[in-house]
Amino acid sequence: MRKFASAFSGAEIQAVCGGEFRGGEHLRFSSVADPADAAADSVVFWEQDRWFEAVRDSQAGLVICLPDQARLLPGRNLLIHPRPGFAMLKLVSWWLESSAKKPPPGIHPTAVVGPGAEIGADAHIGAFCLLGPNCRIGAGAIIEAHCAIGPQTTVGKNTWLYPRVTLYPGCVVGEACIIHSGAVLGADGFGFALEDGIQQKIPQVGNVVIGDRVEIGANSTVDRGTLGSTSVGDGTKIDNLVQIGHNCRIGRHCILCAQVGLAGSTILGDYVYMAGKAGSAGHLSIGDRAMVGAQGGVTHDLPADGLYWGTPAIKASVYKRILAIQRKLPELYGHYLRQNKTEED
Amino acid sequence: MRKFASAFSGAEIQAVCGGEFRGGEHLRFSSVADPADAAADSVVFWEQDRWFEAVRDSQAGLVICLPDQARLLPGRNLLIHPRPGFAMLKLVSWWLESSAKKPPPGIHPTAVVGPGAEIGADAHIGAFCLLGPNCRIGAGAIIEAHCAIGPQTTVGKNTWLYPRVTLYPGCVVGEACIIHSGAVLGADGFGFALEDGIQQKIPQVGNVVIGDRVEIGANSTVDRGTLGSTSVGDGTKIDNLVQIGHNCRIGRHCILCAQVGLAGSTILGDYVYMAGKAGSAGHLSIGDRAMVGAQGGVTHDLPADGLYWGTPAIKASVYKRILAIQRKLPELYGHYLRQNKTEED
Amino acid sequence: MRKFASAFSGAEIQAVCGGEFRGGEHLRFSSVADPADAAADSVVFWEQDRWFEAVRDSQAGLVICLPDQARLLPGRNLLIHPRPGFAMLKLVSWWLESSAKKPPPGIHPTAVVGPGAEIGADAHIGAFCLLGPNCRIGAGAIIEAHCAIGPQTTVGKNTWLYPRVTLYPGCVVGEACIIHSGAVLGADGFGFALEDGIQQKIPQVGNVVIGDRVEIGANSTVDRGTLGSTSVGDGTKIDNLVQIGHNCRIGRHCILCAQVGLAGSTILGDYVYMAGKAGSAGHLSIGDRAMVGAQGGVTHDLPADGLYWGTPAIKASVYKRILAIQRKLPELYGHYLRQNKTEED
Repeated sequence: MRKFASAFSGAEIQAVCGGEFRGGEHLRFSSVADPADAAADSVVFWEQDRWFEAVRDSQAGLVICLPDQARLLPGRNLLIHPRPGFAMLKLVSWWLESSAKKPPPGIHPTAVVGPGAEIGADAHIGAFCLLGPNCRIGAGAIIEAHCAIGPQTTVGKNTWLYPRVTLYPGCVVGEACIIHSGAVLGADGFGFALEDGIQQKIPQVGNVVIGDRVEIGANSTVDRGTLGSTSVGDGTKIDNLVQIGHNCRIGRHCILCAQVGLAGSTILGDYVYMAGKAGSAGHLSIGDRAMVGAQGGVTHDLPADGLYWGTPAIKASVYKRILAIQRKLPELYGHYLRQNKTEED
Repeated sequence: MRKFASAFSGAEIQAVCGGEFRGGEHLRFSSVADPADAAADSVVFWEQDRWFEAVRDSQAGLVICLPDQARLLPGRNLLIHPRPGFAMLKLVSWWLESSAKKPPPGIHPTAVVGPGAEIGADAHIGAFCLLGPNCRIGAGAIIEAHCAIGPQTTVGKNTWLYPRVTLYPGCVVGEACIIHSGAVLGADGFGFALEDGIQQKIPQVGNVVIGDRVEIGANSTVDRGTLGSTSVGDGTKIDNLVQIGHNCRIGRHCILCAQVGLAGSTILGDYVYMAGKAGSAGHLSIGDRAMVGAQGGVTHDLPADGLYWGTPAIKASVYKRILAIQRKLPELYGHYLRQNKTEED
Repeated sequence: MRKFASAFSGAEIQAVCGGEFRGGEHLRFSSVADPADAAADSVVFWEQDRWFEAVRDSQAGLVICLPDQARLLPGRNLLIHPRPGFAMLKLVSWWLESSAKKPPPGIHPTAVVGPGAEIGADAHIGAFCLLGPNCRIGAGAIIEAHCAIGPQTTVGKNTWLYPRVTLYPGCVVGEACIIHSGAVLGADGFGFALEDGIQQKIPQVGNVVIGDRVEIGANSTVDRGTLGSTSVGDGTKIDNLVQIGHNCRIGRHCILCAQVGLAGSTILGDYVYMAGKAGSAGHLSIGDRAMVGAQGGVTHDLPADGLYWGTPAIKASVYKRILAIQRKLPELYGHYLRQNKTEED
C-alpha cells in the first residue's frame, strides 16, 4: 500500500481518470494498494476475472472496475471504467505529481564539483557526489548521492540518476532519463587480442550515448565503444542486471528485461523486445519489433516482426513444436529400439 | 588460511565442538585453513574420502576427522567427531565471535543523517553514509561506508549492511539480516504500457519488505512493488547478482543461487531451492521445497516437493531421460534416413 | 570518435605502427573513429571485406588497410599494413600514453584513511574513498572515488580501481590490474547448512587473491573462500556481471565473458574461454584452453583443448549435430506417427 499526503473525493478521481464514479460523495481516498493490503481509504483496480475473490474480500474503499463487473460488487463504491488498469496508472501518476517530494534543487555541501562543470538551473546534486571537470548537468536534473560523474560527460535536462550511478568520462545521457542505483555506463568494452601468450588489451576509447526518456535498471552495465559510441535510442527501457556490450546500437522504444546480455556490436531496431535472460551473439542485427523469448540466444540476424525463442533462436512457433516433440522422445526412442530388435530377429 | 587473534588448546576446541581430542596438551591452534595452505597452528577438517591425500600431506597441526578415518592418520593430532564439517563450522563461528572485531558503535563524522532519523543503541553508521529523513536503524545494526538509506526506511536490529548498499525510500529490512555490497533494494519495478508508440512508465509506488535473518548477495537487486510490496520471507538466502522482480513474494528459508532471476509477481513457497542462473516467468507459483536445476526456466506453476529442470522446467527425472535420448538423435535420425530410403526403393 | 590532444603526421604514425604511409606530408591526424563517424582528421582501419562501402564512403582522413585493398581506395591517404586492426591498436595505445591524463598522485582531502595504511609513491586516492586499517596500496596505483577498501587488503603497483569498487577485508589484488566500477571482491561465499529447519550460515573466513594484469568488469562479483582463497591467475580477463563462487581457482590468461557464473570450487586451467552467460556447476575442473559456448552449462570435468557447448556441455561438434537434427524432429515424429498407424492397420 502506498499512502499519499493528500486525499480526494470520488468525483475528483473521476475527473482525473475518466469513467463514472458511483458511491458516497463524502468519502475521501488517500492510498493505492493491492486488494489484499487495502484499507478503507484505498483505491484498488479489478480487470482480470481471476482477481474477483481478492477484490470482493478486500477492505478497499473504492474499486476501479469494468462496466460488466459492477453488478458483482453490490454496495461498493466503484469507478466504472473501460480500462481499469490504465485508470489506475493515471491516478497514481497524478497523485505522485501532486504530493511526492523530489529532492530539492541545489548542490549538497559534501559534493565535490570539478573545474569547468556546468550545472543547470534547479538541478539537485546529492551528498558525496563527484562531478568531474567540464561535465554538464542539465536543468532540473537530479543526481542522487554517491554518483561518480566523469569528466566531459553530459546529463540532459530532467534526467534522474538514483544513488551510486557511475558515468565514465565522455558519456552522454539524454533528457528525462531514469538511471537506477548501481548502473555503470562507459566501462571499457571487453576486447583483447592474444599476442605471444598474453591477452593484450585493445584500448577502448569510444563512449556511451543514451537518448531521451531512456530508463536503465539497477546494476546494469553499458560498455563504451572501442572507437565509436555504444548507443541506446530514445524511449528504450532496460531492466536490472542487463549487459550491453561495446559498439551495440539499440533502437528506440525497445524493452530489454532483466539479465539480458548483448555481446559487442549487436544492432537492435526499434520496439525490439527481449525477455528475461535472453542473449545475443555480437555483430548481428535484430529487426524492428522482433521479440526474443526468455533465455533465448540469438546467433544470427533476425528479421523484423517475428517472435523467436530457443538457442539458437528460431521462430517461436517452430521451437514450441520441437519442444513438444522432445517430450515424446522416450516414446519415439522406445519404438526405434523395438523396431531395431525386430529387424535383427 | 584465516589467522585469528587468539589461540586455543585441543581441549578447549573439544569443549566448543564436541568430539574427542587426541593429541598434545601443550599445543595451541590459531588458524583454520584448507589442507594445502595449512600451517602448524592450523585446524583442518576431513570428511570426504577423496581429500585423503591432501589431508595426509598437509602441514596442519590438528585434523578434525571421522572415527574410522583416525587410523589413517597415525601420529597426527586429531579431533575425532561424527560430523567434521559441522564441527569446523562451530569452531569458526565461535572463533569469529571471540576474536573478530565488528565496526565500532557510533556515527562516522562524515556521515549525513537526515532529520527525524532514529538510530538505535550501539549501531554503527560508516563513513560517507547518507541516511534519509525519518529512517529507523535498529539497535546493534551495522551500516558500512557509502550506504544510501532512503527516507522512511527501516533497518532491523543487528542487521549488517556491507559498503555501498542502496535502500530506496520506504523499504523495510528485518532483524539480523546480512546485505552484501552493491545490493539495491527498492528500485522501480519494470512496468511499461505501450501507448501511442511510447513505452509509458507504470508508476511503481510500493516497497520492499525483507524478513528476519535474510542474506542478500553482492550486486543483487530486489524491485519495489507496483502498488503493494515485494517480500522476502524470514531466513531466505539470496546469492550474488540475483534479480527479484516487482510484487514477488518469496517464502521462508528459500535458497536462490547466483544469477537467478524471478520475473514480476512470482510466488515462492518455503524452502524453495533455485540453482544458479535458474529463472521464472512471472505470475506463477512454485510450491514449498520445490527445487529448480541450474539454468532451468519455470513457465508454469510448480507443485511442492519436486525436482525440476530444463526450459520449460519439467520433472528432472523426465528431463534427464529426454537429454539422454537427445544424445542418441544422430543414431535415430540415421535409422530414419535409411528406412526412408528403403521405402523409396 | 575519440579526439586526442595532439596531432601527428602520416610519417609519425608510420613510425609508431609500421607499414607504409602513402599520402600528403602536410596532413595531421588527431582522432580515431568508426568509418561512419570519421572526420577529416580521423584515422580508421579496414580489414574485413564487408566494411568496404563504409570505409569508401567515410570522411576519414587516413585509412589503415591491407596491401591488396589499396587499389580500391584511389586518391585516399593510406597506411598500408599487413594487420590493420593491430596497427590501430598500437596507434591508439601510443596516443593514449602520450596524451591521456591519469588522475594525479595524492590523497583527496575527503578520503578517509585508516591507521596503519601504507600508500605507495604517486598513488592516487580519490574523493570519498575509505581505506581500512593496515591496507597497503602499491606505488602508482589509482583508487578512484567511492572505493571501499577493507582492512588488511593489498592493492598492487599500478593497479587501477575505477569508482565504487569494494574490497572486503583481507583481499589481495596484484599489480597492473584494472577493476571496473561496482565490482565486489570478497563478499561471503554462499554456503548454508539446513539444521532444524534453519539455513545456518557457514562462516566464510577465507579471502580473494587476484594475480597481476587481471581485468575485472563492472558489477562483477568474486566471493571469498570459505577457509582458503578464491584465486584468479595472472593475465585473466573477466567481463561485466560475472559471478565467481567461493574457492574457485581460475588459471592464467583466461577469458570469462559477460554474465558467466562459476559455482563454488570450480577449477579453471590456463587460457580457458567461457562465452557469454556460460556457467559451471561447482567442484569440477575445466582443462587448459577449453572453450565453452554461450549459455553452455558445464556439469562435469572437461579435458583440455576442446570446444564445448550446451547444457550439460558436450563436444560442440556433437552438440551442433544434435541441434541440427532437433530441427528435423517434426519430420521424424510425423514419420513415426504414420508408421505406427500403418502397423495398427
